[in-house]
Amino acid sequence: MSRAAASLAAPAREGVGTAAPLLAELRDALGAAHVLKGADAEGHLTDQHRRLTGRALAVVRPADTAQVAQVVRLARRHRTPIVPQGGNTGLMGAATPDGSGRAIVLSLARLNRVRAVDTDNDTLTVEAGAVLAAVQQAAREAGRLFPLSLGSEGSCTIGGNLATNAGGTQVLRYGNARELVLGLEVVTAEGEVWNGLRGLRKDNTGYALRDLYVGSEGTLGIITAATLKLYPLPQSQHTALLAFGCIHDAVAFLGAARAGFGAGLTAFELISDTALGLIAQHVPEQPIPLDLGAPWYALIELSDSEGEAHARERFESVVGQAFEDGLVADAAIAESLAQSEALWRLRDEALGEAQKRDGRNVKHDVSVPISRIPDFLAATAAALQERFPGVRPVAFGHLGDGNLHYNVSHPAGGSPADVFAVEDAIHETVHDSAHAHGGSISAEHGIGQTKRDLLPRYKSAVELDLMRRLKAAFDPLGLLNPGKVLPPAASPLRLHFDEIPAP
Amino acid sequence: MSRAAASLAAPAREGVGTAAPLLAELRDALGAAHVLKGADAEGHLTDQHRRLTGRALAVVRPADTAQVAQVVRLARRHRTPIVPQGGNTGLMGAATPDGSGRAIVLSLARLNRVRAVDTDNDTLTVEAGAVLAAVQQAAREAGRLFPLSLGSEGSCTIGGNLATNAGGTQVLRYGNARELVLGLEVVTAEGEVWNGLRGLRKDNTGYALRDLYVGSEGTLGIITAATLKLYPLPQSQHTALLAFGCIHDAVAFLGAARAGFGAGLTAFELISDTALGLIAQHVPEQPIPLDLGAPWYALIELSDSEGEAHARERFESVVGQAFEDGLVADAAIAESLAQSEALWRLRDEALGEAQKRDGRNVKHDVSVPISRIPDFLAATAAALQERFPGVRPVAFGHLGDGNLHYNVSHPAGGSPADVFAVEDAIHETVHDSAHAHGGSISAEHGIGQTKRDLLPRYKSAVELDLMRRLKAAFDPLGLLNPGKVLPPAASPLRLHFDEIPAP
Repeated sequence: MSRAAASLAAPAREGVGTAAPLLAELRDALGAAHVLKGADAEGHLTDQHRRLTGRALAVVRPADTAQVAQVVRLARRHRTPIVPQGGNTGLMGAATPDGSGRAIVLSLARLNRVRAVDTDNDTLTVEAGAVLAAVQQAAREAGRLFPLSLGSEGSCTIGGNLATNAGGTQVLRYGNARELVLGLEVVTAEGEVWNGLRGLRKDNTGYALRDLYVGSEGTLGIITAATLKLYPLPQSQHTALLAFGCIHDAVAFLGAARAGFGAGLTAFELISDTALGLIAQHVPEQPIPLDLGAPWYALIELSDSEGEAHARERFESVVGQAFEDGLVADAAIAESLAQSEALWRLRDEALGEAQKRDGRNVKHDVSVPISRIPDFLAATAAALQERFPGVRPVAFGHLGDGNLHYNVSHPAGGSPADVFAVEDAIHETVHDSAHAHGGSISAEHGIGQTKRDLLPRYKSAVELDLMRRLKAAFDPLGLLNPGKVLPPAASPLRLHFDEIPAP
Repeated sequence: MSRAAASLAAPAREGVGTAAPLLAELRDALGAAHVLKGADAEGHLTDQHRRLTGRALAVVRPADTAQVAQVVRLARRHRTPIVPQGGNTGLMGAATPDGSGRAIVLSLARLNRVRAVDTDNDTLTVEAGAVLAAVQQAAREAGRLFPLSLGSEGSCTIGGNLATNAGGTQVLRYGNARELVLGLEVVTAEGEVWNGLRGLRKDNTGYALRDLYVGSEGTLGIITAATLKLYPLPQSQHTALLAFGCIHDAVAFLGAARAGFGAGLTAFELISDTALGLIAQHVPEQPIPLDLGAPWYALIELSDSEGEAHARERFESVVGQAFEDGLVADAAIAESLAQSEALWRLRDEALGEAQKRDGRNVKHDVSVPISRIPDFLAATAAALQERFPGVRPVAFGHLGDGNLHYNVSHPAGGSPADVFAVEDAIHETVHDSAHAHGGSISAEHGIGQTKRDLLPRYKSAVELDLMRRLKAAFDPLGLLNPGKVLPPAASPLRLHFDEIPAP
């Protein structure tokens, strides 16, 4: 749909003539300082991975919701596509314009105010451009927890987190971004403002617009503000690194930990022996408190609402029982905040750094039902060895969510070029395996432009058709982030009802 | 939209001629025993409250998803509306056909199989017609909890629960029905099957179709099966009835309980003095373990993942601290399962029975942000007394979700006719107040036909327009549960893009 609709729009390149009036109107509306071109715009045109670079008429920086709506109306009048952008930290290119130079990039960065904190209602209302770390900080200052937490939290924005339904390390307990939002304010494709900023835990007065906008990657509307859920701050947190004799034991211990810790289990991060070995080899400054040699490890975190002594007692009870049951082979329990932070650094920083120093690898973000993780791992490793002998799978991720970052590194003695030469075939092997095990080819990173054309292989025609209908209903001109999420269709819509003769 | 679309369909009354072929085709497809008419159909044509009765061509009972799809295709070919129905326990008339007799009622009752239980993934896949209590039981048999719990659980179906995004008493901890489902199977308006039965906690591969179908009351598609989330069974549960000196204390104690119990706080049911007084007056067989005289009471429940001793210690610690802080005026803590069940009977049964014996009252299901509950209660009571002197508000509900069942009983010495004579004006008073306090006019009961025409007063034109676009996109012929949820529009769609001249 988006392509078909985009082709209806008149081309509008500055210099060719038709772009100049729009740019003049944008400068009038926002001030010339907030319509960026040339070097000022450059940082907005390349994605986080530096693998995609697009072009744009301009990068515009509205100051508030009213200006966002105004930009949309102006762009719409000129049939100019809009690429919304938050912190530009997405991994799938959803915030990067295409190469045509026809679009404007709409940065939400200046909409970064905390509008309200309500501790009795446990909600915080914040604008889309607020950086995630600043949102976490605002919650902490109010004595509350905003639990969304991910690697880029120092630069990603809450609007981008919501537009991509971000995951991260606390999903096991608190859910994805979609589950952390009660209300949204959205600018529609018509440049109208939908004020859905409700701080309500129950509201059954119509269709789930909020949930639909979340995860739509700027293709259905532009999120400008959100009312978020807050939680009590935990009194105490305990972290440990555990070793398992096989993947089945790790899955069984996850079940035991869910039962024993209840909602206190806030993280269960799986790490393969290969991944831990890369850290030992390439990041010697990172302490690893367990012997290498087990096939699987996990970093687990218990967040306790009572306090230190209770947390320690629970930890020892549940992990101790797992030792007795033979589920856990070895354990290193952090005895201080510093030790706990060192364990999290292992997961959050050293793991990425080790892979970087080992040479870039081919990355995936898949999920399967937790019960199928062991079979998925065995089948995927076998399929990779069969097609690409010697490649080294580096598997880690959020086992509690069934979400693995299953990366594929070059054979020992080789170089990254070995895997990148067959990158698409490696993707296909891993994605086919995830799909065959009832899984998803994008657990938390979204679709953007990078995975867009993979969807028809893994989604039914019925589902793609429903998605295209949504897009056409909310953005009939195809001006909101065109070319993202939805693969091009042979025909714009399947018009069933015209095919059926009336009785 | 639905009305406009419905008017396009040819009328099809049996006996008039055009209905007979459809009925014959339905009998061929399902067997004559599953196409009910006359007395057999009657129970399906009146709602739970016995306030609405409709007519239908027939009530059809398909056996499985393929038959549901076949029924939809047949009805579609004859342009015949379809009213999906689960346990027919809805409170807003969403499952009751209109009076035209043009529609068929599609009962999901025969789709009641448990398709799969996966304890490693903590999921259960079940068909839409399964009764909620049977789903809870299947989970318990697998050693797990399915936490959705509401008054009608012995007869409502999981499909209806999902179609209306049911709430209930455990929302505080586990969320509404929408948050308890991972995947859906849905028959579309075209009679195609969308297989979205994914048991994944993370899947960011497109628009949130699942969340959109949930709560759409059968107007966008027909849910035929669902993959549900399971939780560990709590080791121990403690229940107490507390008395508060004012509503502010109840709100403050809710915050203390959330912090002190963490996710262990599974219920916080507010009960006003008037409501408790009605029980004392009309249901003398119900024990009330506290003195009457406080303005507010609450039944709270702590679910503990550790065991009896820990639960008791936590309960005493948190409630004890609240006593010391002067938040709680009095408390009766259940010392046995029997005492706990008696407290829940007070809330779940005696409260309803007392109102019934006192004489029917005018009922509401509103929510406001928890922080605004005290102001809402004061303002609503004042507005009611001003307009309807002497009426007795009977307020109770799920304080933890900001959701109150704010009912209005006739003045002492009067009769129910006093309030039903001004029913609409009472609704308007209560709904206006909820709206003015940032709230919702339907927290958990949905819209159906009963509240449909109230929406334009409380929802923006932008939101209603987006809802109508969704309906038109998913059900272009307007055959799925027409006349429900969406208020009739002056014009079918606001076609903004046609109003704007091209540049």
